[in-house]
Amino acid sequence: MRATMIHGTRDIRVEDRPDPEVLLPGDAVVRVTAACVCGSDLWPYRGVREVTEPKPIGHEFVGVVEAVGDEVTAVKPGDFVIAPWAISCGTCPPCRNGVQVACEHRAAWGGSDEQGLPVDGGQGERVRVPMADGTLVAVPGVTDPDEALTKSLLTLSDVMGTGHHAAVAAHVGPGRSVVVVGDGAVGLSGVLAARRLGAERIIAMSRHEDRAELARQFGATDVVAERGAEAAEKVRELLGGVLADSVLECVGTKESMDQALRCTRPGGSLGFVGVPAGGAELPIGTLFSKNISVAGGAASTRHYLPELLEDVLSGDINPGHVFDSVMPLEEAAEAYKAMDERRAVKVMLVPGLQR
Amino acid sequence: MRATMIHGTRDIRVEDRPDPEVLLPGDAVVRVTAACVCGSDLWPYRGVREVTEPKPIGHEFVGVVEAVGDEVTAVKPGDFVIAPWAISCGTCPPCRNGVQVACEHRAAWGGSDEQGLPVDGGQGERVRVPMADGTLVAVPGVTDPDEALTKSLLTLSDVMGTGHHAAVAAHVGPGRSVVVVGDGAVGLSGVLAARRLGAERIIAMSRHEDRAELARQFGATDVVAERGAEAAEKVRELLGGVLADSVLECVGTKESMDQALRCTRPGGSLGFVGVPAGGAELPIGTLFSKNISVAGGAASTRHYLPELLEDVLSGDINPGHVFDSVMPLEEAAEAYKAMDERRAVKVMLVPGLQR
Repeated sequence: MRATMIHGTRDIRVEDRPDPEVLLPGDAVVRVTAACVCGSDLWPYRGVREVTEPKPIGHEFVGVVEAVGDEVTAVKPGDFVIAPWAISCGTCPPCRNGVQVACEHRAAWGGSDEQGLPVDGGQGERVRVPMADGTLVAVPGVTDPDEALTKSLLTLSDVMGTGHHAAVAAHVGPGRSVVVVGDGAVGLSGVLAARRLGAERIIAMSRHEDRAELARQFGATDVVAERGAEAAEKVRELLGGVLADSVLECVGTKESMDQALRCTRPGGSLGFVGVPAGGAELPIGTLFSKNISVAGGAASTRHYLPELLEDVLSGDINPGHVFDSVMPLEEAAEAYKAMDERRAVKVMLVPGLQR
Repeated sequence: MRATMIHGTRDIRVEDRPDPEVLLPGDAVVRVTAACVCGSDLWPYRGVREVTEPKPIGHEFVGVVEAVGDEVTAVKPGDFVIAPWAISCGTCPPCRNGVQVACEHRAAWGGSDEQGLPVDGGQGERVRVPMADGTLVAVPGVTDPDEALTKSLLTLSDVMGTGHHAAVAAHVGPGRSVVVVGDGAVGLSGVLAARRLGAERIIAMSRHEDRAELARQFGATDVVAERGAEAAEKVRELLGGVLADSVLECVGTKESMDQALRCTRPGGSLGFVGVPAGGAELPIGTLFSKNISVAGGAASTRHYLPELLEDVLSGDINPGHVFDSVMPLEEAAEAYKAMDERRAVKVMLVPGLQR
């Protein structure tokens, strides 16, 4: 099969790889119909995280189950499934607590499973899925979604669930004022999640008109282009003299975390989901004196999948709009480049796509 | 009047000071019937925080209102009142949000008010209370409480409200497992607060039998004497293979924060109220990967005072047991010494006490 490998900084290649097979009784093999590039894939791409050897990459995909091991009961061949970005058993204490990202038997896409067997990356034609019962979610009544539905289902693998996690962690709810730091796919999903959870006022931070427009479409009531102290003052002005009740940090850099903290009112809540990179810190003195609560982290999108899936299937939310580009899997290198250069918000990769 | 001053490291003196008067229309003057030494008073005492000039000290006291300014309506001469450790206006946005510690007009005991006028410390015979309406809480039906009731009322100024804040911040509630790090007055109050909030299992960390005994009396179901990784393993063992849902950090040092983080399960909640000193940090990577939420900080005990006062007056809780020593105000220096050397959990200072 064809699959995407990262060889080093800015070195993405689509190569021939062995076809995956069911190796363990809990495995499934999924034929990928769509995958995508994550903002966090850009950390190794940019060299922020070192790549020590070539490895399969990608952790967001949807597709059709082709084969399952003897112990798999939750999905069957022919099912259209969503694979969350984190593999999880579904039965250990963290999984039962809804924190599948801390699964005690965790395996990693593009890495290996608990038994040391290799696991394919998501940006390829096929993937061996360990612990399929805990990991995969079958989409009821859907076998061959069109492109628009595919996009929305694919966001439930990571970005939409991650934006939702930020909103939940920041205690977004009716009557609350919200600031979203980050206008990438996760930030935009956070805007949509905040609207879905009933926030009264949603301020998106963006200085890119196309992203700001999508934020408005997703429910942002205001867009702030300023940064730093000016941005916080703008938020205070928009909210009638106070800072925000809930702030979603959706980037992961020192600057974005500082921005998020500046915008949070005393006693407010900060939900952070940007993968920490570039020295992001939580200053204990500020949190102490301002009583700012901090929650979030890696999102257990598996936990949120059922409720979000229901709203996607009903048409209540259309998070797939975060994909502003669709490319053949073979053009994965260009997809990374477009996202790195911020020419694309998020790129969907489709195996076998002709154009 | 006589009042306690800190002159430098380990230099506490009770001295003659000017009698306070009503200076502003919002002021009250309170005759202190009992005050106490806070764990955080030990930071300047120990030199952890530099003392640059002699200043009045103490921020926890109860007493009788002697005089009020023209604008004061919530308390009147003769009222028995509790003064929270933080002075607050009661009407600015943070105050209305229940975060009085971030009052926009904040003044400080032993420091000055917004107008730059000096404010007395709490460890003295009398105190000028700025913004008396927002700050003071009158105790209904009580004019001259006995020593036992005085002790419990005095804890509502700081330690009981602070322990409660830690428990609320850590989402303590029915069915939750709780670990309390710190066996000082705040930690012990945290145990009591956790029981009051319905926690199922409360593990106190202590290696002092007298404190452990008080923890048990307050509702601890288990006491762990181990520290570090061993303590976390003990917690895991006691809780049947998982770490705690809620952890209360009630010290403020690097060691205690590390201990608290070690004991929190993935997706669990850490409530921190120990005044950060000695390099306490919140490691963003751990919080991210384990999805540990962090909340708390300086406690707005004014916010919690009404509900906790009701339970003290009904006899449902007796937090005054944290006072294991009562001394005349004149012996304030010895009170600091006893607490510094951990010979006393918490010392109540009584002006004019004969013994």
